[in-house]
Amino acid sequence: MNQARQPIRSGMGRSTPDRIFVQGRDLVQDVIGKLNLGDMAYLEMTGRLPDKHQSRVFNAILVTLVEHGMTPMAIATRLVYLGAPESLQSAVAAGLCGMGTTFAGTAEGAARMLQAAWDGDGNQDADTLARDVVADFRKRGLSIPGIGHNLHKPRDPRTARLFEVAREEGYAGRYVELMTSIGLHAEAAYGKPLPVNATGAIGALCCELGFSWKAARGVAVIGRAVGLVGHLVEEQGNPIAREIWLRTEEETSCQDETSADIGR
Amino acid sequence: MNQARQPIRSGMGRSTPDRIFVQGRDLVQDVIGKLNLGDMAYLEMTGRLPDKHQSRVFNAILVTLVEHGMTPMAIATRLVYLGAPESLQSAVAAGLCGMGTTFAGTAEGAARMLQAAWDGDGNQDADTLARDVVADFRKRGLSIPGIGHNLHKPRDPRTARLFEVAREEGYAGRYVELMTSIGLHAEAAYGKPLPVNATGAIGALCCELGFSWKAARGVAVIGRAVGLVGHLVEEQGNPIAREIWLRTEEETSCQDETSADIGR
Amino acid sequence: MNQARQPIRSGMGRSTPDRIFVQGRDLVQDVIGKLNLGDMAYLEMTGRLPDKHQSRVFNAILVTLVEHGMTPMAIATRLVYLGAPESLQSAVAAGLCGMGTTFAGTAEGAARMLQAAWDGDGNQDADTLARDVVADFRKRGLSIPGIGHNLHKPRDPRTARLFEVAREEGYAGRYVELMTSIGLHAEAAYGKPLPVNATGAIGALCCELGFSWKAARGVAVIGRAVGLVGHLVEEQGNPIAREIWLRTEEETSCQDETSADIGR
Amino acid sequence: MNQARQPIRSGMGRSTPDRIFVQGRDLVQDVIGKLNLGDMAYLEMTGRLPDKHQSRVFNAILVTLVEHGMTPMAIATRLVYLGAPESLQSAVAAGLCGMGTTFAGTAEGAARMLQAAWDGDGNQDADTLARDVVADFRKRGLSIPGIGHNLHKPRDPRTARLFEVAREEGYAGRYVELMTSIGLHAEAAYGKPLPVNATGAIGALCCELGFSWKAARGVAVIGRAVGLVGHLVEEQGNPIAREIWLRTEEETSCQDETSADIGR
Repeated sequence: MNQARQPIRSGMGRSTPDRIFVQGRDLVQDVIGKLNLGDMAYLEMTGRLPDKHQSRVFNAILVTLVEHGMTPMAIATRLVYLGAPESLQSAVAAGLCGMGTTFAGTAEGAARMLQAAWDGDGNQDADTLARDVVADFRKRGLSIPGIGHNLHKPRDPRTARLFEVAREEGYAGRYVELMTSIGLHAEAAYGKPLPVNATGAIGALCCELGFSWKAARGVAVIGRAVGLVGHLVEEQGNPIAREIWLRTEEETSCQDETSADIGR
Repeated sequence: MNQARQPIRSGMGRSTPDRIFVQGRDLVQDVIGKLNLGDMAYLEMTGRLPDKHQSRVFNAILVTLVEHGMTPMAIATRLVYLGAPESLQSAVAAGLCGMGTTFAGTAEGAARMLQAAWDGDGNQDADTLARDVVADFRKRGLSIPGIGHNLHKPRDPRTARLFEVAREEGYAGRYVELMTSIGLHAEAAYGKPLPVNATGAIGALCCELGFSWKAARGVAVIGRAVGLVGHLVEEQGNPIAREIWLRTEEETSCQDETSADIGR
Repeated sequence: MNQARQPIRSGMGRSTPDRIFVQGRDLVQDVIGKLNLGDMAYLEMTGRLPDKHQSRVFNAILVTLVEHGMTPMAIATRLVYLGAPESLQSAVAAGLCGMGTTFAGTAEGAARMLQAAWDGDGNQDADTLARDVVADFRKRGLSIPGIGHNLHKPRDPRTARLFEVAREEGYAGRYVELMTSIGLHAEAAYGKPLPVNATGAIGALCCELGFSWKAARGVAVIGRAVGLVGHLVEEQGNPIAREIWLRTEEETSCQDETSADIGR
Repeated sequence: MNQARQPIRSGMGRSTPDRIFVQGRDLVQDVIGKLNLGDMAYLEMTGRLPDKHQSRVFNAILVTLVEHGMTPMAIATRLVYLGAPESLQSAVAAGLCGMGTTFAGTAEGAARMLQAAWDGDGNQDADTLARDVVADFRKRGLSIPGIGHNLHKPRDPRTARLFEVAREEGYAGRYVELMTSIGLHAEAAYGKPLPVNATGAIGALCCELGFSWKAARGVAVIGRAVGLVGHLVEEQGNPIAREIWLRTEEETSCQDETSADIGR
């Protein structure tokens, strides 16, 4: 196993006694007091500073992702904090672990779908691509990422707003067009309201900003980390985790002791 | 255990078919396209929108916390991503778990120290309080949180900049004064450079903005989550985790098989 | 920072094409088919194989720690699995994060207390040490780890059984004596039932087996990891996480939108 | 959303003041001092006590999974512990998060493949099924789970031992036969050594014991949790995480500050 070694390189940051560089920028001169957190996230993820148009679109994406009320992840974060209040960071980590395929894969999936469609055949128009995408998902029996919502119908109000911001900043291009068109074709094909939802809109805007679909989940993680910290600050002043625990424990304890076959 | 039940309450967010409320604000009308991510974090943690002064100070804190180069947490995040590339969120979670007492407790500790000092006796001046704080930590043999840095000396350049931003926005009050004074008394007491470091400055500014010391670690978690996502985006394009793993495995594998007493 | 480098050493395991060594043992010849999981854990944590007495005591400790019903950690694990069913490992990880000071620090704390007491003055008898320990905790206003239980009183049935197993195997020595004596002095001092609970018994037995108090939390983590996997297998066949989520979300959503001051 | 509510049921465990039931068993009378940890894991995952044959096979699986030397997960666990030594449980959690598709999905994948093959057509013999499975994976360009190893070739020594234990206990049935046959057909089809590796053997034995493929990853998580605790005990006595960190940081810091385009 005595193989030739690869050098280990990184451009994230480095320090000297009197200066700190982040992504090639001087942290003290160029970042602190000048960038907001969303712009800093853009710098971290792209190596470039956003212009004011990119800044507004990217911050719009991020703030949309922060808070979704009492999600399973938020409840898990609060329960873990109850057990380990000395490790706030681990409670946030526990909640983040739940951002998997059920709730959080869809922005990523939408971005992937859009990039695959445009990369596959640049000569086609959005309407034709959209029709093919819908037909393909339908044939494979898969649900289309970024389409439909069980509460927000017939329209997801976040989508209209996100696309409006993108238009105002010059970032409502071919990915927004394709995502919108996929929504229309899906509604026609399935004969029911299937609006482009917030994750579909965010997937499209991540593409417009030039992010790869693999980075889209990272954008979602940033937003949700902010939200989970918010839940813990509320939990500090208004603790509810203990009550959720006690109710659940009480209800499951009413059973007799011979119930080991549940779930088998 | 059939106890009377407490209601479960939360003001984080709720939705109707056509509207979404976050912290009592309309997400579509008041948040998307209007707030940057730092302002949204402020809203989540306080229930209030920041004014422009609070926004600049809070964003300055947050961007300072994002990137610290190749920390143990960043390396751990990359290694976990190597094992589970389908779960980017879990790789960020793994890195966050390492934000414990060694590296990240100090902003929290500094805020706690400052709040305890001012809460203890509001009639004393900062200089007297600082002298007492330094003497107390010294007597108990504990290091003073927020003071000293092994690389950035005799001055931590982030501290001067953070305090400058705070002064410009009218938020360099008694906590900044006390933290600065603690640094001076510590240098005099120990006879060596003990500058207020970035975590000391951030602890003081969290106090100035009205955060409880318990929330200070949450602020650090938000910043670091952004940074860890940044590391994963770099890892996607420039993978180094495998090399770190292979080097470590190779070096530890050169030992003979009878070495089970290492670390016992 | 061009410092001289330390070698990186480990005796955990290494492999050649046809052999695998774990803790200096041949995995194929000496471990598979010969050791049970508890004995393997003992080997991993000590570098030595347990004799049959150590094996029975250590397995008794471990199985006691596996299952505690619907704890906050178990609920969190199930909620995270709901969000990320493709990452069972992350759901277990999320639950483990909750094994902090509230629920899991006590075996560690009891072991630390017992080791400190005997290390402090080997010439004293257990009764005198116990009296001093109880007086010391009382003076400092701290609760004594490993003592008292809100449900199992006046006796924790696990303690009697664990100490019985230890006596049968010749491992009920001075730490068991001291822990028992601390329980009696505590009951006398506070005038109420304060039985040695399971974590107190486990802390004492970890000491008897020669584990440092720092390793005691590791023993608890092993047991609980088994239990959390068990909860996920039940959740696969009998899912309850969605119901816990929906009830909580529904109850917190009945509030009006101007409730952002909860917990502030 | 005022929907009718489902009851929340669980058979994992419950307590009365003087008794504790786990999986319908009395913890004090039937478990402590009688079961080893592997048997307890079997009880937790199936609701049944293993007989002595099942016990030996299941413990053989578990101990095989514990220790794999300095894996990315083990290194990540050590790095997180360096940052948060007060939260040993979170360091184990961080390492577990890395048990994803790269390293740990294969036992699960092998079990899934074997169950799908036998469930699909019970009338075919193992040899025919194996040929079809290999051809199917080949056609789809996917690697076959549980087959091949970059170090252990031409044979993985763990496989022979695990199958030997299974034969001795009467658990080397049709899943072992099919897995073995898949290995032979794969070697013939690809013209190179493709031995059934340890995860393939474990996948087959999980099937023999009646576990669903979804539970197979849980078995792996249990084993690995034990191993990661072992690494932390070694790290407590022989710390290496700091050295891994400092080497990596030093190497990545030699670059100039304008290197923000790495990985973009």
